[in-house]
Amino acid sequence: MGSVNLEQSEGYGSDGYTLEAKEKIKKACSAPDAAIYFLIGGTQTNAVAISSLLRPYEGCICCDTAHINTHEAGAIELSGHKVIALPNEEGKVSAAALSRYLEDWHKDGNRDHIVHPGMVYISQPTEYGTLYSLSEITEIRKICDQYGLCLYLDGARLAYALASGENDVSLEDLAHLCHVFYIGGTKCGALLGEALVVPGRDTLPHFFPRLKQCGAVLAKGRLLGLQFATLFTDGLYQKLGLHGIKCAHLMKKVLTDNGIDLYLENPTNQVCCVLENAFMEKLSEKATFSFMDTLDETHTVVRFCTSWATKEEDINKLDTILKELRG
Amino acid sequence: MGSVNLEQSEGYGSDGYTLEAKEKIKKACSAPDAAIYFLIGGTQTNAVAISSLLRPYEGCICCDTAHINTHEAGAIELSGHKVIALPNEEGKVSAAALSRYLEDWHKDGNRDHIVHPGMVYISQPTEYGTLYSLSEITEIRKICDQYGLCLYLDGARLAYALASGENDVSLEDLAHLCHVFYIGGTKCGALLGEALVVPGRDTLPHFFPRLKQCGAVLAKGRLLGLQFATLFTDGLYQKLGLHGIKCAHLMKKVLTDNGIDLYLENPTNQVCCVLENAFMEKLSEKATFSFMDTLDETHTVVRFCTSWATKEEDINKLDTILKELRG
Amino acid sequence: MGSVNLEQSEGYGSDGYTLEAKEKIKKACSAPDAAIYFLIGGTQTNAVAISSLLRPYEGCICCDTAHINTHEAGAIELSGHKVIALPNEEGKVSAAALSRYLEDWHKDGNRDHIVHPGMVYISQPTEYGTLYSLSEITEIRKICDQYGLCLYLDGARLAYALASGENDVSLEDLAHLCHVFYIGGTKCGALLGEALVVPGRDTLPHFFPRLKQCGAVLAKGRLLGLQFATLFTDGLYQKLGLHGIKCAHLMKKVLTDNGIDLYLENPTNQVCCVLENAFMEKLSEKATFSFMDTLDETHTVVRFCTSWATKEEDINKLDTILKELRG
Amino acid sequence: MGSVNLEQSEGYGSDGYTLEAKEKIKKACSAPDAAIYFLIGGTQTNAVAISSLLRPYEGCICCDTAHINTHEAGAIELSGHKVIALPNEEGKVSAAALSRYLEDWHKDGNRDHIVHPGMVYISQPTEYGTLYSLSEITEIRKICDQYGLCLYLDGARLAYALASGENDVSLEDLAHLCHVFYIGGTKCGALLGEALVVPGRDTLPHFFPRLKQCGAVLAKGRLLGLQFATLFTDGLYQKLGLHGIKCAHLMKKVLTDNGIDLYLENPTNQVCCVLENAFMEKLSEKATFSFMDTLDETHTVVRFCTSWATKEEDINKLDTILKELRG
Repeated sequence: MGSVNLEQSEGYGSDGYTLEAKEKIKKACSAPDAAIYFLIGGTQTNAVAISSLLRPYEGCICCDTAHINTHEAGAIELSGHKVIALPNEEGKVSAAALSRYLEDWHKDGNRDHIVHPGMVYISQPTEYGTLYSLSEITEIRKICDQYGLCLYLDGARLAYALASGENDVSLEDLAHLCHVFYIGGTKCGALLGEALVVPGRDTLPHFFPRLKQCGAVLAKGRLLGLQFATLFTDGLYQKLGLHGIKCAHLMKKVLTDNGIDLYLENPTNQVCCVLENAFMEKLSEKATFSFMDTLDETHTVVRFCTSWATKEEDINKLDTILKELRG
Repeated sequence: MGSVNLEQSEGYGSDGYTLEAKEKIKKACSAPDAAIYFLIGGTQTNAVAISSLLRPYEGCICCDTAHINTHEAGAIELSGHKVIALPNEEGKVSAAALSRYLEDWHKDGNRDHIVHPGMVYISQPTEYGTLYSLSEITEIRKICDQYGLCLYLDGARLAYALASGENDVSLEDLAHLCHVFYIGGTKCGALLGEALVVPGRDTLPHFFPRLKQCGAVLAKGRLLGLQFATLFTDGLYQKLGLHGIKCAHLMKKVLTDNGIDLYLENPTNQVCCVLENAFMEKLSEKATFSFMDTLDETHTVVRFCTSWATKEEDINKLDTILKELRG
Repeated sequence: MGSVNLEQSEGYGSDGYTLEAKEKIKKACSAPDAAIYFLIGGTQTNAVAISSLLRPYEGCICCDTAHINTHEAGAIELSGHKVIALPNEEGKVSAAALSRYLEDWHKDGNRDHIVHPGMVYISQPTEYGTLYSLSEITEIRKICDQYGLCLYLDGARLAYALASGENDVSLEDLAHLCHVFYIGGTKCGALLGEALVVPGRDTLPHFFPRLKQCGAVLAKGRLLGLQFATLFTDGLYQKLGLHGIKCAHLMKKVLTDNGIDLYLENPTNQVCCVLENAFMEKLSEKATFSFMDTLDETHTVVRFCTSWATKEEDINKLDTILKELRG
Repeated sequence: MGSVNLEQSEGYGSDGYTLEAKEKIKKACSAPDAAIYFLIGGTQTNAVAISSLLRPYEGCICCDTAHINTHEAGAIELSGHKVIALPNEEGKVSAAALSRYLEDWHKDGNRDHIVHPGMVYISQPTEYGTLYSLSEITEIRKICDQYGLCLYLDGARLAYALASGENDVSLEDLAHLCHVFYIGGTKCGALLGEALVVPGRDTLPHFFPRLKQCGAVLAKGRLLGLQFATLFTDGLYQKLGLHGIKCAHLMKKVLTDNGIDLYLENPTNQVCCVLENAFMEKLSEKATFSFMDTLDETHTVVRFCTSWATKEEDINKLDTILKELRG
């Protein structure tokens, strides 16, 4: 005779799909001892992980263009911690800028009046679509070790990094170099969900009650498990990333063919380009893109994103729109 | 020529399903001016709504068995606010206890050293499956008005209240009596999601950035919209509730037939009963239930929940298990 | 040639008075390795120390009459942590109640949805003027060790405990039994200031930046150091306490001679008694006392406090007032 | 027959000195309806006031050199709010930079993902000793009104602004232009204490329980009242400021006579100058100064502060030290 469970909301992540997804991710990361947690969205994942890694008096170093500094509505500060923003270099934290900051901090006689740096946040790919090389991340980790900091990587769009021809950083490398990182689902083919990877099990002790307290536990966790189990079967995650990148190449060609300058070269799915303001105004009625930065009085940097779901016809449509607007 | 949107993660709740669901809920509540927000789970919904309703120096009154006081891992306190727990009466806040507390607070010369009461939290049905009557909620609201407090209702299992034969509180009544309440999805047939109803639009100004800051915005909000649009079509929400209640009746019969005392009578889907500890130990290997309270040295109050998804065969299985254990 | 320092606000606690006070306190506690910090008031000290001791998902156990639960305006919750209030026994946490709570917590299958207990808060003397005996604190500490909790003691009025004839707990005992405790200055003869004692130096690492972040660092720290250096010279702290207690004895006699019942016997400087409500109303126009509890429909428990600064003539005045009111 | 009060810790700011100090400050500000609160230190004052002015989803704009951004150990972020730092112009927020930021924010389609600006923080004098002119503050206030922001002014060293020959902003102007500001005591002649001025009484409702909750209430508030009553009698506050400024003039002469470049001209008591690094190293063994910024590989910006308490002989001593080090 079996047992009986009348409640459907049982689970909270203990179902079979979730266990399968965890195993597949650990394997993909060559990190058999890792703890894996599934959360719902990027802002939540960053806020819960970062605030759990830091001690109360510590802050999180990143670059000024980092998602946590610009587009998470102050979620990190809400948890009580300062975001310490260094000037970016093509969307990245440079090892040199990081070293300089930490050296200055340590030589300041008033350093106990200044937020203590507790960790470094980087994103791969960055918010400008650029990539850290393996040697760059290795260098940053070395500095972290020197100063006793954690290294955290935001992989909201990680599929597009992994699939890029110019990428030399594998999941295995990330599990080796980061104290904590997450593999993005929401922007890489899932309905919702991010997979937080904690290579050293003891890095985040008692993390389940912390998640619960932060409202980050899904009663029917199998919804997340099912999706990640699927994404990590037969290389689907990589394939979805590849499609986004191919579409980005097409789009770059469409943009430059229409006389639009790229803001910077990048090898992933986010295409940043420079629009003349009046033209941007008109284009915004026909196409969706994000404001990135004011370049000068008359020009703006904007971002077009492709994804696993972009259709070639959408890019052709953009081409037609651009041609029409140029007259 | 149409427009183009290459990113799939657009939306954040502006899609057609979400708009449809909002309209249907406003209609069901006879609250055409209400603002409706879809969140992901109950703990998150309570924490974000309550912390947004309170001023920094205020706390939230509830009874000691309230979910926010017992089973949300301190989510309200994490947001900086005290949970002020009054003794429950069958799982409910009584108007008398509430009045007494507020009178005492106001006459205390040191009241500025005591947390200011800012709102009242009740749940329908309660954590013990009991129901507030219309006159009880009306009375509580009257006290709230007298002292300038908000009234908030947690409807995690609201379908089972609405479907209960003993219930006399409609969605329309709730929209009339509560400043804010939520209609539970996760425990009432949805994969995930709760619908927060704010009858007076200005009660929670700028709530979107607040949600974003709390990590409570789903990029693909249509997932939530679609489910609530479905639940509020053709009375599905009520039907799912009714099934849970019918199963609870069956289960009560099975329990009492097997010599188990109900802890209290209640008209919804949560069946609280008293188990002798040694028996409980053995039963826990065969069936899933929740610990509620230590009754005395040798007895414990536990809770069985039925739901929209309970199968009659599960209840029969429980019957068999109970018979076997009793020998 | 010497050195030059033009700024007067230098210091932040590194001056000679502060160092002297620290040495004297460490000696009085027989705790040569202790770290000592001077803070400004009781609420601040409790909030900073408790929130620094707890991990984000943990709460602080105390009894329902504890100052942190009743009269600190929610300062602990503001720092993100739940105050877990057990029923008091004459103002105290009993070892039995504590054990029961922790046992229940550990056997609850849903315990990860319940706030994790991280520490125990007790006060000596309590808010009702009662005292823990050495064996009671020893027992509580044993339970703390069993469950991995910290023990924290609020000594806002510690002088009156140390001076009480019935007290058998020395400063040395406290340094031996508590992970952290504080020696009250504000209510025991100082203008302002509390001395936080951390017997194990590593219990609160990097505590200075934490204090600074909490706005709890006094630029001119010598103001605090000077006072504690004085209080801990020639037994002044004990003497001030003794005076408060002698006055309390006088006052108890005055009250009972005037037909007023003491609420409970206690051996320190807080005199809790029961007043008939109409009488209380009239007395409140003539004398200052605190509301403690509603005893029944017609009676209230109130508290009179004596202190190091109480004058015998004040107590005689109270006698006259009482006699007049009784007619 | 009089009344009796046996407790010495009564008060919490209701004593005669405190009332006198409040009246004198209101008069000095020509703000008869203002609410005045006395707090203990600058970091505490900024954190409590700013977190009480902001709604949960709002941040505080300032310039990158602002004290709240650099030297308060993250106190604002601890309260849950982002510090939005704009590039400074000689230590100041410029109206132009402020306008640009707010315009960009409002035109960003994703602005609900970006922290909402809720207020502007300025300091007078700034952390570099510079002053805002009346027309500059008026212009900033105009922008605040346009965007619905509060204007807050940190007057930690306000005495030195008020006494400066180049200052054209009176206390009356501040009460007219700022929603909230504070008059510094700690750095301007008091042992401790800052006076928070709220010209519109309703700007910070229920501020006492908020202060209590933040651990910012001094039981014996008369200690603060007494000092401010004294500082605002017979122009003492202005006189103390003037002394600091005179000493700063002397010091600037000593520095430049010894071949040291001033970093910028400023009319108050903070003297910022540029030191060659090796020289700085040696000087730091003999004199106390603060690190401000790394100018280039071989030069550093440091700050010497004079104050109400600086003695002429100290400045002469500095002269001797400099001469000796230069050889």
